[in-house]
Amino acid sequence: MKISHSFDSGAIEVLSLDNPEDIRLRLRADNAAEFRQWFHFRVQGAAGRSLRMVFENASAAAYPDGWPEYRCVASYDRRNWFRVAATRYEDGQLIVEHTPEHGSVYYAYFEPYSYERHLDLVGWAETSPFAHVDSVGSTIEGRELDRIVVGREAPAHRPVWIIARQHPGETMAEWFIEGLLERLLDAADPVARRIRERAVLYIVPNMNPDGAIHGNLRTNAAGRNLNREWRTPDEQASPEVFHVRNAMEATGCELFLDIHGDEALPYVFFSTAEEVPGFTAESAARQARLVAALSAASPDFQTEHGYKPGRFGEELLTLASKWVAHRFGCVSLTLEMPFKDNANMPDGRTGWSSARSKRLGAAMLNAILAHLEGN
Amino acid sequence: MKISHSFDSGAIEVLSLDNPEDIRLRLRADNAAEFRQWFHFRVQGAAGRSLRMVFENASAAAYPDGWPEYRCVASYDRRNWFRVAATRYEDGQLIVEHTPEHGSVYYAYFEPYSYERHLDLVGWAETSPFAHVDSVGSTIEGRELDRIVVGREAPAHRPVWIIARQHPGETMAEWFIEGLLERLLDAADPVARRIRERAVLYIVPNMNPDGAIHGNLRTNAAGRNLNREWRTPDEQASPEVFHVRNAMEATGCELFLDIHGDEALPYVFFSTAEEVPGFTAESAARQARLVAALSAASPDFQTEHGYKPGRFGEELLTLASKWVAHRFGCVSLTLEMPFKDNANMPDGRTGWSSARSKRLGAAMLNAILAHLEGN
Amino acid sequence: MKISHSFDSGAIEVLSLDNPEDIRLRLRADNAAEFRQWFHFRVQGAAGRSLRMVFENASAAAYPDGWPEYRCVASYDRRNWFRVAATRYEDGQLIVEHTPEHGSVYYAYFEPYSYERHLDLVGWAETSPFAHVDSVGSTIEGRELDRIVVGREAPAHRPVWIIARQHPGETMAEWFIEGLLERLLDAADPVARRIRERAVLYIVPNMNPDGAIHGNLRTNAAGRNLNREWRTPDEQASPEVFHVRNAMEATGCELFLDIHGDEALPYVFFSTAEEVPGFTAESAARQARLVAALSAASPDFQTEHGYKPGRFGEELLTLASKWVAHRFGCVSLTLEMPFKDNANMPDGRTGWSSARSKRLGAAMLNAILAHLEGN
Amino acid sequence: MKISHSFDSGAIEVLSLDNPEDIRLRLRADNAAEFRQWFHFRVQGAAGRSLRMVFENASAAAYPDGWPEYRCVASYDRRNWFRVAATRYEDGQLIVEHTPEHGSVYYAYFEPYSYERHLDLVGWAETSPFAHVDSVGSTIEGRELDRIVVGREAPAHRPVWIIARQHPGETMAEWFIEGLLERLLDAADPVARRIRERAVLYIVPNMNPDGAIHGNLRTNAAGRNLNREWRTPDEQASPEVFHVRNAMEATGCELFLDIHGDEALPYVFFSTAEEVPGFTAESAARQARLVAALSAASPDFQTEHGYKPGRFGEELLTLASKWVAHRFGCVSLTLEMPFKDNANMPDGRTGWSSARSKRLGAAMLNAILAHLEGN
Ligand SMILES: [Ca+2]
Ligand SMILES: [Ca+2]
Ligand SMILES: [Ca+2]
Ligand SMILES: [Ca+2]
Repeated sequence: MKISHSFDSGAIEVLSLDNPEDIRLRLRADNAAEFRQWFHFRVQGAAGRSLRMVFENASAAAYPDGWPEYRCVASYDRRNWFRVAATRYEDGQLIVEHTPEHGSVYYAYFEPYSYERHLDLVGWAETSPFAHVDSVGSTIEGRELDRIVVGREAPAHRPVWIIARQHPGETMAEWFIEGLLERLLDAADPVARRIRERAVLYIVPNMNPDGAIHGNLRTNAAGRNLNREWRTPDEQASPEVFHVRNAMEATGCELFLDIHGDEALPYVFFSTAEEVPGFTAESAARQARLVAALSAASPDFQTEHGYKPGRFGEELLTLASKWVAHRFGCVSLTLEMPFKDNANMPDGRTGWSSARSKRLGAAMLNAILAHLEGN
Repeated sequence: MKISHSFDSGAIEVLSLDNPEDIRLRLRADNAAEFRQWFHFRVQGAAGRSLRMVFENASAAAYPDGWPEYRCVASYDRRNWFRVAATRYEDGQLIVEHTPEHGSVYYAYFEPYSYERHLDLVGWAETSPFAHVDSVGSTIEGRELDRIVVGREAPAHRPVWIIARQHPGETMAEWFIEGLLERLLDAADPVARRIRERAVLYIVPNMNPDGAIHGNLRTNAAGRNLNREWRTPDEQASPEVFHVRNAMEATGCELFLDIHGDEALPYVFFSTAEEVPGFTAESAARQARLVAALSAASPDFQTEHGYKPGRFGEELLTLASKWVAHRFGCVSLTLEMPFKDNANMPDGRTGWSSARSKRLGAAMLNAILAHLEGN
Repeated sequence: MKISHSFDSGAIEVLSLDNPEDIRLRLRADNAAEFRQWFHFRVQGAAGRSLRMVFENASAAAYPDGWPEYRCVASYDRRNWFRVAATRYEDGQLIVEHTPEHGSVYYAYFEPYSYERHLDLVGWAETSPFAHVDSVGSTIEGRELDRIVVGREAPAHRPVWIIARQHPGETMAEWFIEGLLERLLDAADPVARRIRERAVLYIVPNMNPDGAIHGNLRTNAAGRNLNREWRTPDEQASPEVFHVRNAMEATGCELFLDIHGDEALPYVFFSTAEEVPGFTAESAARQARLVAALSAASPDFQTEHGYKPGRFGEELLTLASKWVAHRFGCVSLTLEMPFKDNANMPDGRTGWSSARSKRLGAAMLNAILAHLEGN
Repeated sequence: MKISHSFDSGAIEVLSLDNPEDIRLRLRADNAAEFRQWFHFRVQGAAGRSLRMVFENASAAAYPDGWPEYRCVASYDRRNWFRVAATRYEDGQLIVEHTPEHGSVYYAYFEPYSYERHLDLVGWAETSPFAHVDSVGSTIEGRELDRIVVGREAPAHRPVWIIARQHPGETMAEWFIEGLLERLLDAADPVARRIRERAVLYIVPNMNPDGAIHGNLRTNAAGRNLNREWRTPDEQASPEVFHVRNAMEATGCELFLDIHGDEALPYVFFSTAEEVPGFTAESAARQARLVAALSAASPDFQTEHGYKPGRFGEELLTLASKWVAHRFGCVSLTLEMPFKDNANMPDGRTGWSSARSKRLGAAMLNAILAHLEGN
């Protein structure tokens, strides 16, 4: 039996593999920071054997609240992922019990989204008649910050920015983008067509490709949490934000969506902009319209559960959507999807999943169109 | 050069093929009635030749108003269909000018939907965990009236009926059903999931398979316009309505949608139930909610253009959606899609199309859910 | 519970449906001849019920030897077909016992190949850069005899003719053509490329579309067994042969393959040309080379089992491949595939199948190339 | 305009990007050795601009003979690759002139095959009923040496080993494996079925995943040319060979194929085992049978052009197929495919390609079966 993790977003520390019924693991920290929660590894040679995997340092994860009710995802072929029912959080340890049906099985915190798939997504968009691709800048490790531009730049076309995966372990964010793009580039979809007529969309499917490949949870290659860098991005340490912020200054921004996953809450929700200085009644009305439209478009979305006011304290304007709301005075939201499941519509087999993230991305277009047609 | 039409829904009369630049054609009548407008035929041996096809009796079509602004659809491979720009209605004749790129080309009034595809659709639904199939009865020529039942029959599950293609030449209606079903049977779509939890859907994708195979525009094998048979269906002459009406009596009906195409109007619209005796303010409110939800879900849908009040006169309660509104007091609507294009969102290449019909079918689920959650 | 057959190639007579455990059926004769063996029907309303279907007149089938060891094919979705193990021939009756898992199930003599699929195949070939399509003539019922021409007509390009499905119930013959064509039109396959450089192929995927739609076993709409018409085809009664024979005279023929199914023998084999007058040692050598190449390319093919000499008696030169051998002095063969299984490589789940027929069609290209390179 | 290469197998050095018409590049060396020839990079921001890229140190490549007649491969979407006609070798420099149609374009020495695709291939095989996967050992950087085992281990089942991509830049070798596997795991293919009945196949699709990810041409992470390590593999420096050799000792070997690409020769050929000490007349006969069978199965393969005798000199038994021939006395061959094109069947658009490599892999099964049935 062996465990490997030398692949895109692979992350685990193996303490002991001696006993299949007591495999001792540790969550690995981000490559340059102390955040830890993401894991992704492959077990070989255990077909038909009853495995018990103990993540000893689960309580030291960035979000220990992420473990209760959480179930590990697993796959044999890397395409079909399912939840491992026998996952539990006990005495500060995460314990996963599973008997693999095949000799090679992958376990992960959530369904991975590799950089190769990212480049395939971008390449596919590039050849669409409705989009083109450019690079907003380079990451610390020399990867491109791919930006997919949909629609034509024209005076009447309003600038919409959508970014995802500032936190690289939140892979559901890029699955969301994939679903959104597949609909947005559909020649026959009327919502997509109307949006393409009224807006130009700047979409950054992966704000943090370095961190994603490293299997980081929250930070880039320099250990920076990008979603705390928006007030004063550093060209060296957080170039991802530095360059995207500059690009936004160049185009302006009339709607901003920042796509995330939340470790703890089993719901899909927005983190909204009420606390941002300068948020007006008109801001509230515009924000409410988009929120209502998403509610109508997707029952997976809800507004009852979400972050408590004051959660971000002093850091508020260092967050992307808050900074943008403040800077551009536009509707600016952070979308959060669960790592666990949507407790309002639970799915025992998959929990929250890549497929559901993609459907939500597609549904978001209805909300974007409602926004564009509202003013 | 030759023209053939001995295939599913093939229909044309060839008067003269002597001169490729003056091909003389006639629209063929339904097999047992005098309606004519549908055509579907194949031309062979004309690659690279400039064809001019004249439909001499276009003014005798059921809806001569269908010809202005109409453009013929064409395909080489029967999968990719495009509009022939040089289509015009002149002096009571429909004239189509086209230079085929290949030796075999199909022309049709609209993208066909064959009985084989119908059976494949039904077979696919049959193997879904969310659906099963039964037969409501048999047609005059011994075909089954396939009914796809989605969701479980349970006291709390409200009965929704959706029927399509009473008028067999309105193939967009079955494309619509295909799009609706693909979404409705999706395990990950939250709108579909919610609907499956709250309703049981009885879907008849093709009310008139006999007429469809014959290439009829409006009638069944006995020459009956099924959408004028709902008050007094005849077991012999209009068994399709007879059996479906009985099945509705057995299940009850809490929402009814009848899917159609309209030859003349270049818009997607509902024919609503205001004129039905017994239509109340509450009926109006419920109807309005569904209409508003579809407006929000699909920009291809609109409410400005539609039928004039009084259009159906004495026949009103012989129409499916009117009869159902009257009998069950539920929201009951006829959806009309264009044969031409949606003038609000024209597409020069395809006009209104199978793909757009499918997207509309998918969007209808949002409206159905709004209806189910409204009461 | 009900049985229907009003669809492409549907064929059965229902004597009694009263008792699911004793359903009484009869094989239906061809539309204008007394041959019977093909069946294809749909049972509805029998999910989970144990069915026993008795074909009372099985002993009156064209080939009663076809029943021992035969197993009925079945499908729920018309794409995935499987064999019904509990099929037996007893006291002159064919008995099929099956408990369907779904409410709609199809049973057939072999996996059907519909005219719609035929037109799709032809349409797909039409848009290949390596092929074009024309019509050799029309059938009695006005269908086109589609001919797919692969490769360019040029002096150095040798004319190869491949025809299939003279006997319409032998659907494996058109599946074979589909497999052959998919490889032959592949831009990357070197065998296909070499063939396209050296030959022009005239492929008639379905010699008998009228009979196929009728669900006939052996004859066209006029009741003629086309494979007994080659010496003196009749323009009215066997136009399919009449026109193809004329077309062969126009192009010449340097290799001829006629694709069939055999009801009785559980093997893939050729009916060869030794008995044809004028068959020389050189003919034998050329024939042997192609046969050896097919043996090497496909283990499903064998040469041990086949027809006894003298089988066709006086009729010999009325058969396609014999007449062609005689007329053109070229390698000319009839390929036979089993309705049952290949006893040398049995597959309990599928028996002989569409998939295996397609693989054999692909493998035949190796044999064709060996032939072309041999001289 | 910018150039990036921070992705799987990315490799280039950029000297100057100032002038699109005179972009100065250098081939990068393997990560721990001085071999260089592979390149793979992305150009952004050059849509519609006429690029001239000069690889200044092309003459210092491992195989300068690889450049005459070579044409660079390019792609916009990473799926469809084409050759850049305006590629030439001049004064020791490789010059590529191209005007990209899109804003993002990839150039490479040959169509890449990523580690992600590798893991997907292995995952797909894992879930086949005919195969399972294990790890033979780990690479220097902790990747698994995936071995796909096809067929059952049984006394009568002969052990066949197929390895690929010892030289990581020879991506055509893994495309070959993909084509071979797709056919080998096909339930309906008779050649695959016969092989699975008679042999157990041990397939290592990528012997050198570390080198592959690094974008190396010839060596592993420690700079070792694995195909010179077979006599005395080093557990630390060439664990890939060390472990596979041990695994072969455990299973025995009755047929060995090592899949490669050749930079210089524009042909598909075998490097055979005549020079191996102990090669007998019987060895020659068995080898000749397999070679003949491949000739029959694939016109892309030929025996006229190949390596000169004595090419490997003293190193002979350090090469995989030579060492295996010597050790196991079995048929043991190195297959070479071109980086350029097959001069016998040139394709102006693609040259030698992934698709053609896959077809060759599929055709190899005929040769393997001929081998298995020969003794
Ligand atoms: Ca986050
Ligand atoms: Ca209508
Ligand atoms: Ca036959
Ligand atoms: Ca090599």
